Order: sequence, then C-alpha cells, then structure tokens
Amino acid sequence: MYRIGVDLGGTNIAIGIVSEEGAIVAKKSVKTGASRPFAEIMKDMADCILALLADQKISLDEVSCIGIGTPGSVNNETGMLVYANNFKDCENIPMRELLQKYIDKPVYLGNDANVAALGEVISGAAKGVNNAIMITLGTGVGGGIVINGQIYEGQYAAGAELGHILLVKDGEQCSCGRKGCWEAYASATALIRQTKHAMIDNPNSIMNEMTSIENVSGRTPFDAMRKGDAVAKEVCDTYIEYIAAGMVDLMNIFRPEVFIIGGGICNEGDTLLVPIRKYVNAHIYGGDRNPEQKIAVAKLGNDAGIIGAAFIVK
Amino acid sequence: MYRIGVDLGGTNIAIGIVSEEGAIVAKKSVKTGASRPFAEIMKDMADCILALLADQKISLDEVSCIGIGTPGSVNNETGMLVYANNFKDCENIPMRELLQKYIDKPVYLGNDANVAALGEVISGAAKGVNNAIMITLGTGVGGGIVINGQIYEGQYAAGAELGHILLVKDGEQCSCGRKGCWEAYASATALIRQTKHAMIDNPNSIMNEMTSIENVSGRTPFDAMRKGDAVAKEVCDTYIEYIAAGMVDLMNIFRPEVFIIGGGICNEGDTLLVPIRKYVNAHIYGGDRNPEQKIAVAKLGNDAGIIGAAFIVK
Repeated sequence: MYRIGVDLGGTNIAIGIVSEEGAIVAKKSVKTGASRPFAEIMKDMADCILALLADQKISLDEVSCIGIGTPGSVNNETGMLVYANNFKDCENIPMRELLQKYIDKPVYLGNDANVAALGEVISGAAKGVNNAIMITLGTGVGGGIVINGQIYEGQYAAGAELGHILLVKDGEQCSCGRKGCWEAYASATALIRQTKHAMIDNPNSIMNEMTSIENVSGRTPFDAMRKGDAVAKEVCDTYIEYIAAGMVDLMNIFRPEVFIIGGGICNEGDTLLVPIRKYVNAHIYGGDRNPEQKIAVAKLGNDAGIIGAAFIVK
Repeated sequence: MYRIGVDLGGTNIAIGIVSEEGAIVAKKSVKTGASRPFAEIMKDMADCILALLADQKISLDEVSCIGIGTPGSVNNETGMLVYANNFKDCENIPMRELLQKYIDKPVYLGNDANVAALGEVISGAAKGVNNAIMITLGTGVGGGIVINGQIYEGQYAAGAELGHILLVKDGEQCSCGRKGCWEAYASATALIRQTKHAMIDNPNSIMNEMTSIENVSGRTPFDAMRKGDAVAKEVCDTYIEYIAAGMVDLMNIFRPEVFIIGGGICNEGDTLLVPIRKYVNAHIYGGDRNPEQKIAVAKLGNDAGIIGAAFIVK
C-alpha cells in the first residue's frame, strides 16, 4: 500500500506517493494560485494526485490515505482548514470534503510546520525517535512537536507556536502582536533587521561595500564575517546566541531525543552549529547530569512536508 | 483493586490507598528523616504502607501497584532515583529494589511536580482531560506536563523544567545557573525579593510598618495592597504580569485543555486570577481566533502527589 502526501504552499502544491517505509516513490507539483477560490485549488490538487498515480501506474486501491500539510490552523475532526493568512478569504474551508468530491479516500489535515517535523521523524534527521522538536528559521520561527511518534498540536490545534515564547519580555515587536517573542530575534527576518542596524551604525563595515541596505539577506553578515569583518562577526554571534537561547527553553521543557533545526540558515553548517552546541551545553538545565542534547539539521528539505503529511495518521 | 500512592517529601512521607476511581481511601504519614541512609527511609516507607493496609484491613492481594513521587530525577526503566538535591548523598538510589525487598508489587517512580500534575488530571482541577500543564509557584517554579493522560518528562526524565524558560534573556540570576529564567521572576522567592527591594526604595510604604525586611513573606505585598498601599500594588501588578507572561509562553507551546496553577499564592484567588486572565487573553497567540484558554487553581493540595503517584502507570 501507498500513502499520498500533499504539501500545500502559497506558490506550489507538491504531491508525493509515499511508501509505508516513508520513502517518496514519485512526486509531481502544480501551481497553487493562492488567490483563486479554494474549491479550484482543491480540484487541481485532486487532478494532480490522480495524474501522478496514473503516471506511476498505481491504482487508487493501492492508496490507503491522503494527508495534506497546509499553512494555518486545521481541525482534523471536521476536516476543515480553520484559517490561513496565506490564502484569500480563507476561513473554515471544508478541505476534506472538497478533495473527497474527486477522490474517495480518508483525508487527514495538518499544519505545515507540524507535518514537516513529523516527516523528519519518519525518514529524516530524527528517524525512528519517539520525541522530537523541530524549529524552522525563516520569515518567522516555525515549530513542530512530535510526541510518541505523533504530532502534538494542542487544543484547537493552536499549540506548537514555538516561535512565540519570550526571549525578552517587552522587547522587540513581534508579528503576533506581542513584544519580545523569540521569533522577533531568531527569524531570518530578524537577522536581516539586525544586520541593517549594524550597517547603519558602522559605516566602515565591509557589509556596506558588499551590498546596499535594501539588498541585505541572511547570508550578508555570515559572508562578511568570513571576510574578517568584526561588525559582521558581532551580528552573527549575537544572532546565534538568540537562536540557542530559545532552543534551551524548549529543551528544558521537552528534552527531546533530537532537536532539529531547519531553514536556509542551516546551510551555514558548523558556523551555526558549533556555537549553538557550546551555548546549549553551558545553559541547559542540569547540563552536566545527562548526556549531551542531540541537535541535528533537517535533512529532507521540502520533502519533509510530503512525507509527514502522508503519515499524519499512522 | 487499590493502588498505593507515595508522596516522598523532604520532611514527610505521605502514603495513600487510592481507589481505581482516583479517590484516596485512607492516608498515613511518617517522618522522612532526609539525612539518613536511603535504605532506612525506604524501610520506613514500606512499614508505613503495610501498617496503613493493616489499619484498613486491605490485603496486599487487593493492591495492584505502588507509585512514588519524589523530588529529583528518576529513571522508571531501572527503578532508580538518579539524583535529588533534597536528600543526602543521593545519587543512583535503587528505590524500586529497596522497596520490593519488603513488598513484592510493581513499583513506579515519578518526579513530584510531574506526579502532582497527573493527580490534578486524575481527580482534581483538570479531571478527565487529556492534555494539561501545571505550574507550582513556590520556592521555585515547578512544572508538570500531562499529554494523552500521561506524564511527559522527556529523555532522561530531564524535561518539564517549566520554570527554566527565559522571561528576560541575561536578566535576574536563577538558581539553575542561567540568567533570566521565569522562575527568577515568578517564584514566591522572587516575589519576596521584589517586595524587599520595593520596601527599601520606598521607606513610606506601609509595608515597612507591617513587617521588617527579614520577615517579608509572599503575603506581605498582597496584604498591603488591600490596605491601599500604592507601592505594594505596583509590586503585585508586576509580579502577576511575570507569572502571566511565562504562562502565555507555555500556552503558545501546548495550548492545554486546562492550565493549572498551584502553590500558596493561589490563596489570593481572584486577586491573582482576574489580572492573569486579562493578560493571557491579550497576549496568547491567535487569541481572538479560539475560545478562551481555561485556567484553574490546583484543587488537591498535597493529595495531588499521592493520587498522581498511584497512577504513574495506568
């Protein structure tokens, strides 16, 4: 038997046929067209699933279920997408019902960040463990919690908002309305802001030669640091400490078997991981009593969403 | 059938016979004598259990298991108390084995804060729910996590250290070695420190008439606030906001069905709960999207530890 995993994004709908062992057998994608009525998006999703199965000469009888990872908040009991900022007029969309009009299979829903964490547990950086935490450092700080091999999302699927814990009470403004959330310090967006401030305050930093303020990216301070720029090093050191500090909070709460970090910043590799491990070992609760907390970089990239979606229900 | 629950404290060993419905049938206690060799403590625990059963004319055949809630960190696989600061030379104590020398029953171990949370879920403020978080505001900020009706403690039983998440990075010194933990702001110890500072800085506060600096308790600022003291009101308002801010972090992570608060400070009732609810509603992630987060005061007091211990394994 196979499972279908769907990663519904703002730009693309990525669909995979997934084996019971958690491997992607084949993939196909189609444009989301996020501004369309949702019924049209779901029809294209169904068509793409059926086309992919036909390509692979796999019949629907060989498919046990379809899982969809989506931005926003879902209700798996009713099969509704409760809301998602990424889509137009998106409130209480009967996702399951819309898909089952075309394909008569069990349909399960999950939030994309939660589902990606599960994917990494099924086949990726935390393969085979029971309890794992994953954060994704991007525009925001996304989070996923896996407990006993299953997604934990809390009541109303409103938990696992791991970016929205305080780093500094009443500190930097966060997009959620609160001040001082971890996300406001540790997201790629925050790093870009921190870099811009440093460039303005330090006209002699080579970052000002490398790029204009408008074109700063999360790579700018890391590249400049490698060229020996002291201002950039300070930006990077501080940013990495922000990441690590919030990670310690989550470790003290969950003590997961594996703590997974995802997002583009992970391409920095040991430049990021070595100082994070050092900070974690120095600050984690009861640090010297227990073996070192395992920290790993996400391995599956976008495939995590497909694989995790396929296994929302085991 | 009955279960035995043991709440091992630094001062007393409290023992209860607990029904399958989670009610305490009878209780008995004995002094811990925490400075003695652990084997002696465990012998007294066994004697007290057997005496209580004899008192109640309940035979050992009617007892399914014994659960022990203890300070420190336990390993339920090996049956060891790994360490506990409260006892002398307490490292790797074979608790299960020591008790089974006297009573041949399954013995399960749990950390006292975790076990108290489970007790409140079995029979108390969160009766019947699947997912709950409990914090206890005392010398420190203790925490317990119940997920799917079971204690979640993380790898090496080293998680659920809910007091050790940041409120202010690099802020007040915490007992754990880190700076800025929630515990350093929201424990009763922190409230007493905050009150003393306010008394020193404000000689005209009536708190200075009510008590000497040495005799300040957690009640001092609340009593003074009720007498109209503005300085005391400021202390209380700030302290309550510290409590609520950390609670929001945990709600954003867990979105529990019930969030339970325990500790002596809860005697303040609505003086505490009304401003906490107001702060939570204003700051919780996606607050207006979902029903209000349920917050409840712990109901069982010390009995929570006995009942929870009895149900460590269901």
